[in-house]
Amino acid sequence: MSMTTRLSNGQATLAKVDGAAAANVMASLKTIAPDVGKYILEFAFSDIYNRPGLDLKQREMITITTLLTQGDTADQLRVHINGSLNVGLSQQAIIETFIHCIPYVGFPKVLNAIAVAKEVFNNAHQQPTS
Amino acid sequence: MSMTTRLSNGQATLAKVDGAAAANVMASLKTIAPDVGKYILEFAFSDIYNRPGLDLKQREMITITTLLTQGDTADQLRVHINGSLNVGLSQQAIIETFIHCIPYVGFPKVLNAIAVAKEVFNNAHQQPTS
Amino acid sequence: MSMTTRLSNGQATLAKVDGAAAANVMASLKTIAPDVGKYILEFAFSDIYNRPGLDLKQREMITITTLLTQGDTADQLRVHINGSLNVGLSQQAIIETFIHCIPYVGFPKVLNAIAVAKEVFNNAHQQPTS
Amino acid sequence: MSMTTRLSNGQATLAKVDGAAAANVMASLKTIAPDVGKYILEFAFSDIYNRPGLDLKQREMITITTLLTQGDTADQLRVHINGSLNVGLSQQAIIETFIHCIPYVGFPKVLNAIAVAKEVFNNAHQQPTS
Amino acid sequence: MSMTTRLSNGQATLAKVDGAAAANVMASLKTIAPDVGKYILEFAFSDIYNRPGLDLKQREMITITTLLTQGDTADQLRVHINGSLNVGLSQQAIIETFIHCIPYVGFPKVLNAIAVAKEVFNNAHQQPTS
Amino acid sequence: MSMTTRLSNGQATLAKVDGAAAANVMASLKTIAPDVGKYILEFAFSDIYNRPGLDLKQREMITITTLLTQGDTADQLRVHINGSLNVGLSQQAIIETFIHCIPYVGFPKVLNAIAVAKEVFNNAHQQPTS
Repeated sequence: MSMTTRLSNGQATLAKVDGAAAANVMASLKTIAPDVGKYILEFAFSDIYNRPGLDLKQREMITITTLLTQGDTADQLRVHINGSLNVGLSQQAIIETFIHCIPYVGFPKVLNAIAVAKEVFNNAHQQPTS
Repeated sequence: MSMTTRLSNGQATLAKVDGAAAANVMASLKTIAPDVGKYILEFAFSDIYNRPGLDLKQREMITITTLLTQGDTADQLRVHINGSLNVGLSQQAIIETFIHCIPYVGFPKVLNAIAVAKEVFNNAHQQPTS
Repeated sequence: MSMTTRLSNGQATLAKVDGAAAANVMASLKTIAPDVGKYILEFAFSDIYNRPGLDLKQREMITITTLLTQGDTADQLRVHINGSLNVGLSQQAIIETFIHCIPYVGFPKVLNAIAVAKEVFNNAHQQPTS
Repeated sequence: MSMTTRLSNGQATLAKVDGAAAANVMASLKTIAPDVGKYILEFAFSDIYNRPGLDLKQREMITITTLLTQGDTADQLRVHINGSLNVGLSQQAIIETFIHCIPYVGFPKVLNAIAVAKEVFNNAHQQPTS
Repeated sequence: MSMTTRLSNGQATLAKVDGAAAANVMASLKTIAPDVGKYILEFAFSDIYNRPGLDLKQREMITITTLLTQGDTADQLRVHINGSLNVGLSQQAIIETFIHCIPYVGFPKVLNAIAVAKEVFNNAHQQPTS
Repeated sequence: MSMTTRLSNGQATLAKVDGAAAANVMASLKTIAPDVGKYILEFAFSDIYNRPGLDLKQREMITITTLLTQGDTADQLRVHINGSLNVGLSQQAIIETFIHCIPYVGFPKVLNAIAVAKEVFNNAHQQPTS
């Protein structure tokens, strides 16, 4: 795959996953570190997200799990909780993913992730948590 | 649910997920910290694993992601890569889960998890990675 | 112990330790993830905090140490620095606990925890640091 | 306090806490990074461990908590579980400290620390865990 | 070296590296934990920063790398991105240091560090990023 | 740059940096996750390592700092301490890099990294630490 194709493939996948939320990240990188935006598109959203073997719902479930676990990722969780809703995960599935992590990481990281989800869900008004 | 039910529910779920691999963990806790084994059954494998909203394949995918991300978890990854195979994840899906984490945690943690998977797969001889 | 007893035991212990500070956490979980509040009461504050072998001062000292060490836990430190004062740890003992961590975790995490303590102590006006 | 006093104070405190276990660490630093051994004595074991406000039992309880929480510290936990026994913590208090961390860090790190404790206790044969 | 010399050496090095930015840290420690300020000067900025073998540019490059990697260090990164500029690292070298970390820690921590750098550079107006 | 060029550029840079040590990593990935080896070459060693603004000595200094800081990276440190020697860092500069991290991450992680360096230096017999 040529570099141009990787870039446009990445943009297409990113649009599907993160929509407007990621546009802000890209815009804020433009003046200070534009290559980082390029790598996010080419490497993360073209090379990795477009691989076969997992669908986008599974990929977002993995993404919010790794973000919750490493901590200090409220900004990235905000983007990918939105992304999870965009690719079709329900609010319940997102919260359930966080709850499943309690025995592995303890309550504090899970409480932090739930607080971000609450804020995103309140802004989204998309579907009630059952 | 009574405490006895939680304990036996946890044992049933653990048997489905981890089989023999978890028996060693429980046995090694018996003389030094038996209550920790009880909490793993009651809290992790009864209260959490038996919740609705995610199936066992999704729960193991989340589990190996959070273990990979926190690091220093080779022993637990060994148990849960086995558990992932037991509940029906393919070797390919396990490796793909690890690969998806590269943009979020970098290569070192992913290489560590792949090394554990290689060892587990070699012992299991269950199915070829496609 | 029945589930009802675990829940009310957890509530009693939580009231002793965290008082009003924890009420906010529980309230904010109510609409989005009420079961997480239940697990905090049943598992953390009933099963674990009520175990023999350590008193509440020791348990809070351990709690603020693990929160300082994992990082990204300002909200939880706020609750448990208050909790430490509530169960009888002096401001000096709390700061001394943080200082003891310097050789093990370095200055940044300790400075973060001290900044939270300063804010809590200023709101509490309970006793001067000697 | 002069530098010589800091060094000898540190040696005296280290002898009280870690005994033979720390001698190996110091010896292994001698050829490659002797100043690190000096800083451990002067800064950690003289400046910090000799401060008023906490006794050595409390300091070792904090130390094993921060080591458990950061992970990848089996070698240091081995030294300080021994140190905890040396300053008078019971095997039960050490295990209880680890169990108290479960709600804050999850099971994997606690299982890792318990495995190190089991090995240290088996070598020590000092007192039974009640 | 006497304690007084360590303290004044540390103050001189800190002034060279962090200038005004560190004065705030020291001032905020004065009422709650003045000894921590003393240890930062004596141990970090005298004992460690004044060692031979690495110059201040290299030391600040290492410092911002370790701060980026551990996460939850925005306040400390703010001080040391300023410090990096003060000792002669260009804005480009600072951003390049962060970009080099992507394969080792993933994008989230790097995006967090770049966001802090952007804020510091905007306040500094010292030199354009090429 | 075409994909073929990225791959061969990455191989050339990797050969300069890590030599034989990295060949083992690549070989062990071949049967289980060959694409991960490809990404290490294309993304890490072509896209990132070949960027202007930092030389290979600086890049390896950053690499061993981020590996030390994240922990659980003995295997990767082994490769990159060798790589640091290969691109011209002295044993003293490597140890000094680790020592500089003490105030930021504490002693345990630094002791772990020094232990790996000792083993690598003993195998290399290249130059004495002054």
